[in-house]
Amino acid sequence: MRFEICLSGHGGQGMVLGGKILAEAIALYQDKHVVQTQSYGPEARGGASRSEIVVSDEEIDYPKVTQLNLLLALSQESCDKYSVNLESDGILIIDPLEVKSTPKGNFKVYSIPIIQLAKNELGKTLFANIIALGAIAAISGIVNQEELTRTVLKHVPEKTKEDNQKALELGYRTGQTAIK
Amino acid sequence: MRFEICLSGHGGQGMVLGGKILAEAIALYQDKHVVQTQSYGPEARGGASRSEIVVSDEEIDYPKVTQLNLLLALSQESCDKYSVNLESDGILIIDPLEVKSTPKGNFKVYSIPIIQLAKNELGKTLFANIIALGAIAAISGIVNQEELTRTVLKHVPEKTKEDNQKALELGYRTGQTAIK
Repeated sequence: MRFEICLSGHGGQGMVLGGKILAEAIALYQDKHVVQTQSYGPEARGGASRSEIVVSDEEIDYPKVTQLNLLLALSQESCDKYSVNLESDGILIIDPLEVKSTPKGNFKVYSIPIIQLAKNELGKTLFANIIALGAIAAISGIVNQEELTRTVLKHVPEKTKEDNQKALELGYRTGQTAIK
Repeated sequence: MRFEICLSGHGGQGMVLGGKILAEAIALYQDKHVVQTQSYGPEARGGASRSEIVVSDEEIDYPKVTQLNLLLALSQESCDKYSVNLESDGILIIDPLEVKSTPKGNFKVYSIPIIQLAKNELGKTLFANIIALGAIAAISGIVNQEELTRTVLKHVPEKTKEDNQKALELGYRTGQTAIK
């Protein structure tokens, strides 16, 4: 078993922190090896941001993503760029506010208004990454809500804990509705 | 050019955050590709923690560390485990409070009392990872003090900024003294 995840979007959308939290939560939830990678450098300065996670039963010798099982795309650019690596039965989660043109393929597409939910329900787009984590958990089942909540609360400042918990619940509920 | 770094220690010593900050600072300071990886899972639960960084002129196809150029070891266990991958002309930075037995090899060993400095000068061992980053910058030259300071301040809570800046300066000065 090998499951590969990519969280992608604009810089500043919190993909790196999101990836770190998700990787840690998966490792605590499942008895598997988890490696999380982020890339910086010339290509990262263009404003794109991505975080990759590989989950495997075995020790991970090649931590780079090759065939994606799940892609979160919060920008059109990242959707176009990374969806070519998506498995034919993979999961694509997009934000319809940013991704107007959905790539064609056999993968399942879930359109979740993550950024709008963050703005309307929490007053800040800052919470988009945590809403996205909730949706990913509900749609993929790679981690449960409880473990994810615990890990999120460990990594955010004290005074934002309540809003982050709300964001996670909101994302989880929205994801559950989407798979119905 | 390919330069490989491993920050290692006990869980809770902030190696993951340290690696993230260092990778980002190097990417901003140098026009190079930087990939930063952390592993979780069965082996990570033993209490060991590590973060790996690869810096390269070219796009990084294999982000896993193979031959280390720099190893920071804040525990005996991590020193024993990872120093076997250290290049013969590599840099080994240890904390003498934790690492009592230094591995033999042609690499240069720098003994920096990071944890004691954190306790005595800042009142909290929590700052050990930032002191370590300062020492790494001074000893290796892979990033300069200015860029590293900017990146640290971007990633720590407002009320800890002053102490983190102090920690970084302290580590940098101690590193400079060590290479003299």
